[in-house]
Formats: sequence, structure tokens, C-alpha cells
Amino acid sequence: MSFAVAPVFLTQDEATRMRAAAEQDSLIGQSIRSARAQLEEMLQHPVWVPGSGPGGGVEHEQHKLNYSTIFSAGTQYMIFGEARYAERIRDILLAYAAIYPGLPYAKPYSHNPPAKLFHQILNEHMWLLFTSVGYSCVRDTLSAADRATIETNVFEPMVEMFTKTYHHHFDIVHNHGMWACAAVGICGIATQRREWLELAVRGQFGDSKTAGFLAQISQLFSPAGYYEEGPYYQRFAIQPMLMFAEAIERAWPELGIYQYHNQVVQRGFYAALYPSFPNGALVPLNDAVKPMNIKSLGYVIGASLIFRRYEMDQRLLWLAQQHQQVWLDGAGLMLSDAYAPHATEEIHCEFPSIELSCGPQGDKGAVGILRADDAAGDQAVLTMDYGTHGLAEHAHFDGLTLGFFDRGQEVLRDYGCVRWINVEPKHGGAYLPENVTWAKQTIAHNTVTVDERCQHDGNAERAVQYHGQRLQFSGDNADHQMMTGQICDYTPGVTMRRSAALVRHEDFAYPLVVDAFRIQADAEHQYDYALYYTGQIIRTDFPYALDSELSTLGDGAGYKHLWRLGSGKIDAGQGLFSWLQGQSYYSVIFSANVPTEFIFTRIGANDPNFNLRAESGMAIRTRGQNVSYATVVETHGYFEESTETSRNARGQVRAVSVLHEDDTCTVLRLTGNDRNWLVGMAHRDSGNESHAVDIDGRSFTWQGAVAIERE
Amino acid sequence: MSFAVAPVFLTQDEATRMRAAAEQDSLIGQSIRSARAQLEEMLQHPVWVPGSGPGGGVEHEQHKLNYSTIFSAGTQYMIFGEARYAERIRDILLAYAAIYPGLPYAKPYSHNPPAKLFHQILNEHMWLLFTSVGYSCVRDTLSAADRATIETNVFEPMVEMFTKTYHHHFDIVHNHGMWACAAVGICGIATQRREWLELAVRGQFGDSKTAGFLAQISQLFSPAGYYEEGPYYQRFAIQPMLMFAEAIERAWPELGIYQYHNQVVQRGFYAALYPSFPNGALVPLNDAVKPMNIKSLGYVIGASLIFRRYEMDQRLLWLAQQHQQVWLDGAGLMLSDAYAPHATEEIHCEFPSIELSCGPQGDKGAVGILRADDAAGDQAVLTMDYGTHGLAEHAHFDGLTLGFFDRGQEVLRDYGCVRWINVEPKHGGAYLPENVTWAKQTIAHNTVTVDERCQHDGNAERAVQYHGQRLQFSGDNADHQMMTGQICDYTPGVTMRRSAALVRHEDFAYPLVVDAFRIQADAEHQYDYALYYTGQIIRTDFPYALDSELSTLGDGAGYKHLWRLGSGKIDAGQGLFSWLQGQSYYSVIFSANVPTEFIFTRIGANDPNFNLRAESGMAIRTRGQNVSYATVVETHGYFEESTETSRNARGQVRAVSVLHEDDTCTVLRLTGNDRNWLVGMAHRDSGNESHAVDIDGRSFTWQGAVAIERE
Repeated sequence: MSFAVAPVFLTQDEATRMRAAAEQDSLIGQSIRSARAQLEEMLQHPVWVPGSGPGGGVEHEQHKLNYSTIFSAGTQYMIFGEARYAERIRDILLAYAAIYPGLPYAKPYSHNPPAKLFHQILNEHMWLLFTSVGYSCVRDTLSAADRATIETNVFEPMVEMFTKTYHHHFDIVHNHGMWACAAVGICGIATQRREWLELAVRGQFGDSKTAGFLAQISQLFSPAGYYEEGPYYQRFAIQPMLMFAEAIERAWPELGIYQYHNQVVQRGFYAALYPSFPNGALVPLNDAVKPMNIKSLGYVIGASLIFRRYEMDQRLLWLAQQHQQVWLDGAGLMLSDAYAPHATEEIHCEFPSIELSCGPQGDKGAVGILRADDAAGDQAVLTMDYGTHGLAEHAHFDGLTLGFFDRGQEVLRDYGCVRWINVEPKHGGAYLPENVTWAKQTIAHNTVTVDERCQHDGNAERAVQYHGQRLQFSGDNADHQMMTGQICDYTPGVTMRRSAALVRHEDFAYPLVVDAFRIQADAEHQYDYALYYTGQIIRTDFPYALDSELSTLGDGAGYKHLWRLGSGKIDAGQGLFSWLQGQSYYSVIFSANVPTEFIFTRIGANDPNFNLRAESGMAIRTRGQNVSYATVVETHGYFEESTETSRNARGQVRAVSVLHEDDTCTVLRLTGNDRNWLVGMAHRDSGNESHAVDIDGRSFTWQGAVAIERE
Repeated sequence: MSFAVAPVFLTQDEATRMRAAAEQDSLIGQSIRSARAQLEEMLQHPVWVPGSGPGGGVEHEQHKLNYSTIFSAGTQYMIFGEARYAERIRDILLAYAAIYPGLPYAKPYSHNPPAKLFHQILNEHMWLLFTSVGYSCVRDTLSAADRATIETNVFEPMVEMFTKTYHHHFDIVHNHGMWACAAVGICGIATQRREWLELAVRGQFGDSKTAGFLAQISQLFSPAGYYEEGPYYQRFAIQPMLMFAEAIERAWPELGIYQYHNQVVQRGFYAALYPSFPNGALVPLNDAVKPMNIKSLGYVIGASLIFRRYEMDQRLLWLAQQHQQVWLDGAGLMLSDAYAPHATEEIHCEFPSIELSCGPQGDKGAVGILRADDAAGDQAVLTMDYGTHGLAEHAHFDGLTLGFFDRGQEVLRDYGCVRWINVEPKHGGAYLPENVTWAKQTIAHNTVTVDERCQHDGNAERAVQYHGQRLQFSGDNADHQMMTGQICDYTPGVTMRRSAALVRHEDFAYPLVVDAFRIQADAEHQYDYALYYTGQIIRTDFPYALDSELSTLGDGAGYKHLWRLGSGKIDAGQGLFSWLQGQSYYSVIFSANVPTEFIFTRIGANDPNFNLRAESGMAIRTRGQNVSYATVVETHGYFEESTETSRNARGQVRAVSVLHEDDTCTVLRLTGNDRNWLVGMAHRDSGNESHAVDIDGRSFTWQGAVAIERE
């Protein structure tokens, strides 16, 4: 193992080239100037190293400011050579060295153990990682005594805490483990301690399998690059993955980290892009802060590094345009140069419909993402989770949950997590109790809840032993796309199959969602088919009564957090429900093969600290053994209140009915005002095979997974 | 009376100059091209003249399309001389002529009487006005037979309906009356019928006092230009006012309409600009569709006409820049030319703090608007209504209601009206029953409700006999602004005085709202001091309990529409309540001189058709005879969820207490973490006079209406 004695991410030659580019009207020039201006702003603050405090509190924010200052000052020192940048790093770190050994552990706010600067060790990992990078840039400028003081009083006890005191948090295949390894490994490079680097790469047992960075990147991503904890945490995990990979590549090139495990670094990065909506927000599967998006730092780092270490790709140029910045290193210089000729173009990035397989071998179901452009230039996105449960800590019990994004907004909504991140009065910004009692529960999701109980009864140990099955995925035909997943025994004895289609037809201005949800069970149950939305209810086609006093929808498994606003009983099972969200109308047209009760709900009961958002939902309740739901979601019309414009507040589909259903096929009729449509759905992989079903004495045939045509 | 035989708004000379400008990169050029492109799009539709239908329905929309087409085709015909434009007007009008005499009255949806094309006559007024203008441009091109057919079968029966059948709707001082008069008068010009013009100008009795346009513009605006029905309807009323004034000026210049009644046309126009927030939305006093804003057509027309007929004014250039269009006539040409040298500048418009007096003589109270810029370049706006009730139809029982707009958003919210305008399934877009049972009621507003009853017990005939009193208004000192209003006997025996201040101090990043609300009564009552907001509750400093089942806050006067979520009883009367809205935190810090109960509310109970928006509110309840509330609204901190950033989720003010209160002055102490502030408020007009109050043994003095200083 060679061991380059150099700053973690920059050679002096790269820094010199960056200096030459600093005044350019280019992404790298802008990025350098912007970072420098931010640094100058940070330098206005006096050096202050407090004790610990809650998330969002002043101490927490100060430690974040300190590591940001150190990180940025290191880079800017190398670029511009200004001694005051190096001196500020020294001053801050000596201040830490003066108090760190004597600091007590912080007050914890979550299951994440406390560290000394932060209420959770994760933040201290981040502190060490960014600080080490900055430190590496100026280490040569420090006196031997200062170096010893800083390394002995800060880095050594911190690494000791990470790797020994909290070794269970270090030896873990988890995004927190990845941060821990990256921090310790990069600190090893920065302080010339090879043993820390090796420990971080190969794990405490040196086997690269049970722990350490190599084990983590091998096990946390499926062959498709899907990350076990979901997109929100994938966005977070790619930061240490990319930074540590690059640090390793520079310090230990023989390891060939970028080729490791079939180029998992590249796969993990690109797969972090796919589960995103056209507005850049990430699909909120499992715990997620919902506005998180592809402008997050990991994508900025990745656009540059993946460009340099693999190959030019249109998606990276697109990201550079979205970000209007690049990562401040040699890779950022290269991406900036490549972007320059395209700076005035609008760079497009085609996101395909894609099935992201789950599990290290990719055989544990999948997350499906269907995309269809509409005539107005917007894109509709339909997502379904029929994969693994995910790592217990952040996983939701949401098998077969559906998401729908359309005309720039999330329409069928996932709640995300219950957390007001970094909002100090909200329990220090940590996860809140309602994250478990509401957000993880099955009823909080756009799927079916059985007998008002959570899938697996909320038992994560059981849940991780199960996974969904992919029955088919057809995303190639832009007009006719469908995905079919199945879950068995998430409730013992109950099998659920969901085929969710996104189809286009000349009669409809926007893509239609068609959802065939079949439940087969060994006994009779109550089923709640739930959907969540926001906006104003416009109309229903069934009578209902609202409750004059509100009570919760039930007692357990999330139900206690739902107000029941009222309901309508529908003997025929069929109904229509329309609402207005933003500038668009939506109608859910549904039917079941048994009588239904349509229940209007609102989130927020039993929420003593107002932690929940008061969003709206519906539960279409049935009772039976084998029950099938068929649902259409139609996007229609236009509303703009400031110009008092409203068009097509009523959609075209008036009713949906199931004409045929068996193990392989479903045929639906959509009834309109002056015409009807037939939809054929084939639930198994059948390529371009033809399907034929006898409807009203004539044969209805279609090719492929799904088709819609005028009757 | 001369009577020009010409198109209503254009001479051929003006049209020729517009043609010359049509390809220019100027506002007039853009406006001509944009209107022509829209016209070409409209001409793609076949000629279709249906019967009537509900608001937002296809028939309704078609009649709107038809008059828009006629109006635009007339202008474009004059500019470009294309015969097909004139022919389309002829074809549409002949189609109307074929069916109009035989059409039955439409199905009514509101108190507004039905006409034949539209469910309310107001829309038919608009149809006649815009159609007449377009017709006047091409009348010369029609055969005598066609002219006779159109005028006999359409215009004559329509004018007959407006002026005879519905004469009570014509002889009315009201925005509908103004539309009726403008339509009939302009049709008179277009069809060379002087008697219609004179009727419209002077009213049925020819006295210009009891009815007709002159009476309307004399009586509907206060000397300050404030319009009796509120800003939303002022925006609407200035359209016919401006169009008819301009038509009169061209056809009947001897009348001197632009000088009439001390230039009321100009006053009414500018006053329609003042009650707006910095985002352009109009202050939602009385019935209002809330996103309505200064981009509305009346402001486009007015920017051009006021510019031409009065004088150059920076506000008009600012409007031109906001609109990026001008009115298509000679005035628009002139405004476009004046704007051209400034096209690349960012034109600023200073809106002053202003008191808009109410009543034709300006002696019936006022609407006060205070504005204060913050350091970040945003503007805070505080509004209070201590004026007249307004015309019964659209007036709310909201004496002393407060509005607060800050950092780009409405913070202390007014509900506006209950109406989903032009949304056909919502009762044809008409006003909904909850407009009366909720939106007009006192409890729906940011003021105090006595004994759960509406001001004047909801009796509009009583309400119009009362009005608020202005005690003082001080808007000159940017740091220290305050307005004081008083209402007496809105509830018999109860006098309420409210002093609402907007103050700046170096310790606070944003302007503070300080509200001293004093109630004096001849008997004991229950008082609910209500505020409405949206967003997420962050914290309180008092204990409370949420209800496990929800019931309404009460039975009558709007209370039946409020869910009671829970409450906290506060013996000391003082409390703090914080929420998060958008990127900003807000804290309400309150106290009363008696124990309080803080009640959390949500709008939406007893709303069987989901007509209401489920917004949040609070009611601070007291019981007593003479009760005083003191409240501070502090803006603080920053939140951005997509970057997981939160700062200063807690504000600086921890408590407010009243140190002194009498008929003339109030002194408050705001208690902070490490310092306190004193606020002195003088409730009567006192110019720069000095005030002194003994506080804790020393004299606290301040000049003018209000001051804040560190204690």
C-alpha cells in the first residue's frame, strides 16, 4: 500500500489550476468565488467552540459552522495561499483541543447514541470527515507542537470513541456506518495513520465482509444500485461513499475502489437519481424529509467525481446545469470544462421508466417507477414499492404502496417521516414518536390495510424476512406501461397483488393511472384501501354524511392518528371522488366486487404536540375474503384562481367496472359520457404476447402488459 | 352633445399607428402580437352560440369566448384590416340574432338575477360591453340588413332587459350597476343611439344623482378613493368605470368626465392600488377571491388611460412593467413609448402607509394600511378595518379586523369569501351558503367576538347605520407606525378600541406587530380574540390538552364551522404560541388582564359539501366586563426543509405585560431572554407631542403615536 502524503482531495497542481480558473465565467469559477465568499462570511464570526446542544440549537449550529469553515478554509488556502485561512483552521482546532478531552457526552435525543459535540454521533462523524479534509490542506503549515496537540486531543479520542466505544455503530452495514468509516479513513489519510484507513476500509475483522467500507458498499446496494434504506437515505449515503472512494483512490490507488464490486460506486450514484420526481424531489419511500432533492450535496460531489472516474454522461452535464456549481477539486475542473460549450443550451436528461431490483442479489422484489410525458410537456410518474422492507430503523410497513406525481406536484402522497429536522423546539429536530405510531404504519400509505393492523403487525424482525415479488414490469412502450407486484403473508394468510398502469390515449389530455388491486385470503377480513392527497374536495357521485363530532378511525396501528370526517356507504361498490390540487383537478373512480364504504379522513388525531401535518385521505373500506379493487385516477382540467379561470372540473371517466379477472388477466371498462374504454391488464411477464378475453360475447385482445382502447 | 361616429375606443389614425408598432420589441408591439395570436387561436373554434349554463360550464365559457373574440377581432380588424376578422364578428352576431329573441331566462344560481345567455345578468352586462366595442369597429363593414338584424334581435332586447325588466339592477349604486350603465352606454355609442348613452350617464331620472354612471362614481368612492365594497370589488368596478369614462370622453368630450367630481376616476384608480400586498394580491376585506391581484384587467386598462388622461406617474410605469402589456388603444401606445427608455431598469414603486377614509364624505372611519421594509428587502404590511360596513351584499361583519402580511406571505389571514369561482360543480361557481354562515361572521375574522354572536347580530341593515371611528393614524415615521380605531355598539353596550402598531428596532430583524385591544362594556361578556394562520404549530409556553373527540366551538354565528381541537387555561392570562409558515417562524405573545383560555381551532365543521378550506385558528377567550388584550407578533428565524436548515425557531420576546393603560396611552413591557423593551402607545392624534407615563417609579417618555426602546 502506497500512501500519498498530500491533502485528501487536492494536489497543489490542481489547486493552482483552480486558482487560474477562479475569475472565469464558468461553473468552476462561480463555485470557487461562491465558496470563497461564503468562507469570508464565516470568518466574520469569532472563533467559538461551545459544548453540545440539541439539533437546530446554537451549539449544534456552531459546530456545523466550525467544520464547514475548516473544510472550506482548507480548500481556499490551497487555491489562494492566504495564510489567514490556515490560521483560522489552526485556531479553531486548538480551541477544540483545549476542551474536547474534558467534554461529557451530550444529552441524547434519539436512538442514535450521543457524542461529545453533537447529540448524535452521526453529526460527529460528519464533523470529523469534513474537518479532516480541511486539516489535511494545512497540516504542513502547523508547528509540530500544534499538530500533536490537535491530533492527540481531538482526532485520537474521537476515533477511539467511534471505533471502540461505539464499535457497534462502526461495525454496521448502514448509512451511519458508512459515515463512520469514511470519517475515520479520511482522518487516517489526513493524519498519516494508515491503520485507521485500513480499519475503515476492511473493518475491525479485516475481512472486508462483516464490516468496513467495502462490506458496506457491497451489501447496501442492489445490483440495480437501489439502496436498502430508500432514496432519502441513499441521497445521504452517497456523500460518504463518494468522498471516501475518492480519498481512497488518491491515497491507495492499488485498491481499485472505482472498479470494486462491479463498479458499485457508479451504480449507487446513478440509482440515487432514478427515484426522483421531475421537480427534483426524491420519491419519499421509508423515512424521508420530503422536499429533499437532487440539488443535495451528494449529487454535486457525484456529478464531478463520476464524470472524472468513469465517463462522460449527459446526466452529469444535466446535473451540473441544475446545480450551477461543481465540486471543488480536479474533477470539478474537468466537469466545468466539459460543461462550458453547453452552458447556454437547455440540457435535457431522459429518465427512463425503470425497475430498481432490491436485495444484494437483486432477487427480493423491486421498486418500480413509470414515467409518461403529457402533451403540455410535464411528466407523470407512478411508483410502487414491491421490494424489501429495508433496514429496520428507517423502514415503513408499506408493501405495495403507490405514489403518483403529476403536473409538477405529488398527487397520491406519501407522508414521509415525522420529523422537523433541525427545528430545535421539535425535540431537537430528531424523529418524533409519531414517526413510529403513524408514519411507519401501513394505514399511513397508499395501500391496503387488513383488519386495521399493520403489515407484519409492525414487527420489523419479521418484516425483514419477507419481501415482495415482481410479477412483471413493462416500461418500454410510452403509451402502455404497467408494473405488477405481489406480497404474501405480510398479513398471515393474505396475498395481495397490485397491477399499477400508466396509460395514454388520445381521448385523454393526461396519462391515466389504472390500478387493479386483488386480495386473496384464507378467511374473511376488513380491508381499507387508502389514498392520501391534498387540496379541496370538489364532488362525489355518491351520497355521504359528515360526522357532527369527530372521532378517530380506530385505536391502533396508525388509526388513532386519523380523524374520521364522515363516510358514504355504497352498496354497488362503485364511486367517483374529485378534488382540486393547485391548478389541476383529479378524480378517483373506483369499484370493488363487494359493497364499499368511502371514508373521508384527516391526519392529526392523538398528536399532543402538533407534530403531524393535517393532510387529507380516503379509505375505501370493504369486508370479505377475496376482494378486488379497480381504480382509475384521472387528471383533468385547469384552475387558476387569480384569473378566475376554471375548465373541465369534471373528468371524462364516470365509472369503472371489472369485466374479467383471473390469475393472469384483468379487463376493465371505463364508462364515459358518450363513449367507453376497455383496459386489458396482464399480470405476468408476457413480452409482446397477445392476450384475449371474451367480453360480452366478443373477444377483446391486446398485446403486452396493458392496453387501453375505445370500446 | 356632439356624437362622434366612430369605433368606441379607436380612431383609424390610432389603429394605423398601432399597425406601425406591431412588430416593435415594445410593450405595445408585444401586446398587439399577443392579442392577435390569442385571436387566431380563438378563430380555430367554430362559431357556436349555445343556450345558457352554470358558471364554469361549457355554455358559460362559450359565451365568454364569443365576446372575447368579438372584442379582440374588432381591434385587430382596425389594426390589420383583415376582412375575416370582421366577418367572424358578423357571423357570431348573426348566430346570436337568430336565437336570442327566443331564449328563455337561464337557471339562476345566486341572488343575482338570471339573464338569457348567463345564469347571472352581470355576465350579460359584460357580454354587451365587450361585444359593443368589437361591433363598433366593424359596423361600417356590415350590410344594412345585417346591422338591423343584429341590433334589433340582440342589442335592443338586451338593453330592454337591462334597463326595463331589471331596472332595479340598473338604477343601483353598486358595481353591478356600473357594469350595467357602462354596457348600455357603450352600446349606445356603438349603435348610434344617443338615448342609451344619456340614460346610462344620467340615470333613469336624468338627475345624475339617484342613478346612472355619474351618481355611481360620485357615491361609491370615498374622497380617498376607497370603494365601499372592498378591494376585490374595487378591482372589478374600475373596469367599467375606466372603459365607460374613456368611451364618454371620446363620444361626449363636453361632459369632462375625467375632471368630474374632483377627478374621481383618477382617485378611484389609484386607491385600488393601495390595498395590495407586496406580492400584488389585494387585501381581502369583505368578499374576496384571495389570489386576485394587480395584474387584473382593470389595472392594465387604467395604467394606459390614467397615463394619457391625467399625467405621467412612476406607479403607472411600474404597473406597465408588472403587466408587460398595455391596453390596445392610443393610450397604450403612449404608455408603451414612455416605458421604452426604462424597459431594462427595475422600476420601483413606493407604496406609502396610508389611511383610506370611508364614506362619500370620508368621515365614516377608515381602512388603515401600514408598511415597513425589513433588512432583507421584504415589506411587512399591517391592515386594519375601522371604516364602514360596505354594501350589504358583499360586506363582512368584521369591525377592527387585522391583517398581517410579511416576508411574501399572508400571516394573519382573512378567510375571504366562500366561493369556488367558475368551478362548475361548486354550485356553478356562485357564492356558497357558508359565505353567509362562515365568511361574513365576526368569528371568521382577526378581531374580538362577543358572547359568540356576530357584530350587529348579523343584521346588515343595522350594520350600515354604524361605522368605525378613526382615533389616530401615524404612518410617517418608518420605525414607529400605528393606527387606532374604535367601534361602539356593534354589540350594544360594548366599545372596542384597537391600536395596531408596526415598529422596527435594531434588536429585531423584522418589524414587530404590537396590538393593544381594549374592550369596555356595560355588563360582563365572554370575549374571543381570534387570529387565523396557516402552518405547523411549533410550540407553546403553556400547558394544554387536545380533545380526543372533536366538537364544534359552538352553535351559532360562525362557531358551528369551527372545530375545537383543544385548549389550555392560563390563569395568569399570558402565553406564547409559535408556528412555522413557509420559511418563517412566527410567535404570538399575548396577555390579558383576566385569565385566558387559549383555544386551538380549525375551520371546516358543518360543511356538508366541503366548501371550506381547513385553515387553522386560535381564539384567546376571556370573560369580564372591561377586558384588555396586549399582543405581539414576532417574525423570526428561517426554515428551509430541502436543505434541512433551521435557525432561530425561538423568537426573542418571551412575554408581554401591560404596565399602564388609560384612555390616551398604553405602555407595554416585552420581556426577552436577556433584555426587555418598553412600548409606548398613544391612542389619540397627537402629532409629535411627547407622552410621559410613570413606570416603576421613573418616567417613561416617548414622542408621537408609538415608540419602542430597550428598557
